[in-house]
Amino acid sequence: MGRSKADGVLDRLGRQVVEGRFPPGGRVPTEEELVRKLRISRPSVREGLKALVRKGMVESRARRGTIVLAKERWDLLDPDVLRWMAAAPPDYAFLMSLIELRSIMEPAAARLAAQRATPAQILAIERAFRGMADSLPDDVEACHRHDLAFHEGIFAASGNAMLYRFYTAISTVLLTLFRVSTEARESYERSLDEHGEVAAAIGRRQPEEAEQAMQRLLRGTVRDLEPAFRPRKDPKRNSKHNPKGGSKP
Amino acid sequence: MGRSKADGVLDRLGRQVVEGRFPPGGRVPTEEELVRKLRISRPSVREGLKALVRKGMVESRARRGTIVLAKERWDLLDPDVLRWMAAAPPDYAFLMSLIELRSIMEPAAARLAAQRATPAQILAIERAFRGMADSLPDDVEACHRHDLAFHEGIFAASGNAMLYRFYTAISTVLLTLFRVSTEARESYERSLDEHGEVAAAIGRRQPEEAEQAMQRLLRGTVRDLEPAFRPRKDPKRNSKHNPKGGSKP
Repeated sequence: MGRSKADGVLDRLGRQVVEGRFPPGGRVPTEEELVRKLRISRPSVREGLKALVRKGMVESRARRGTIVLAKERWDLLDPDVLRWMAAAPPDYAFLMSLIELRSIMEPAAARLAAQRATPAQILAIERAFRGMADSLPDDVEACHRHDLAFHEGIFAASGNAMLYRFYTAISTVLLTLFRVSTEARESYERSLDEHGEVAAAIGRRQPEEAEQAMQRLLRGTVRDLEPAFRPRKDPKRNSKHNPKGGSKP
Repeated sequence: MGRSKADGVLDRLGRQVVEGRFPPGGRVPTEEELVRKLRISRPSVREGLKALVRKGMVESRARRGTIVLAKERWDLLDPDVLRWMAAAPPDYAFLMSLIELRSIMEPAAARLAAQRATPAQILAIERAFRGMADSLPDDVEACHRHDLAFHEGIFAASGNAMLYRFYTAISTVLLTLFRVSTEARESYERSLDEHGEVAAAIGRRQPEEAEQAMQRLLRGTVRDLEPAFRPRKDPKRNSKHNPKGGSKP
């Protein structure tokens, strides 16, 4: 009981910090305020705040209360932090740094997968690719789910547990990235071909080819993402920046 | 108060699981047993166990109690898990997968650092390198501290907060790695030169050179580490595997 309430406090505050309601340097509500407002016990409030401290998002300061830390201090590999960032309006700098990190990790994961994948793992990657192809053009959300399974399959087949853990950390933000770039891109065929080439190279057990195919796929992600963040001249484009903004009064 | 006691339970159980006292598939003590044995309150015990669940190390199963999960399920980027692994006797497979991950991340971090480091960041990297050189051959522990600062400086200068977060996660195990490979290696001069070349390439802002110099440095780490894990024919070498074993009766 107390656990889920503490998780509720954590989740609520975490989201609010990520959405900028309490900006860095600012103060989050005190324990007293949270107890009153959320009508939950002080131990639960305290546990929730403590978890937020562990994630590097806030810090207790004597006589100043609990202060929001700069984004650089946040634990950017923590699944909760990434889930909150995934739910908040897309942040260009953050998504670009995520793609930069993927460009480092994923070509290497694809290379290792071509070397080490078991037959079952190769099948799983190929099945995920076929799932993407079969979902399009009608069911974009299903395509994203298969797309996640595709990348997860490659990290799993890399045979490095720490590398795989990296995938599980970023999987929630990856879905956001897929959504933003799908909305922005001209067509899906090219991206689908890029995935197909990665799967084929891993299936043929060609590490170099798999690495290079993944590099092309990720350059494609940047290509698809850029229109979503172009300077906001066109109000139609603009609505893609902030799904909650939009054109309605 | 309750907090530090829960942390104590977490720390004790986490260490014991990592050291293999409760092997995967086995059961950790029940809440009742822990309350009795450690003489702390049930909420503290429960909080400690809950934290261990969040780290993917154990799982509650109906009618079977709390079961230890396979190592692949552990959160291998969690600072606590890595700290426990760092304190346990070195595990060859784990250290090699760590080096594999470093071989993916660090050459890229060095390349980005050569592109983006501020003058102050370049100075910090050079200062850490000089610290290493000045500590040797007498003060090996001081050398390790400067070595950590050297690698931290490169990740910080990469300008990618997620990449830097990766460094903070692995920093505790990195120290273990330094200790094991220093004990095993023939001489420190070569490793020192390899660090110097990385620092120089970043200072000259040569991304390609920095990347390649870091690749050489990491191949050197593998070279230095291998003797520590060679098949145990020589009893003198053997003592390096397990510092707690050793030759004393």
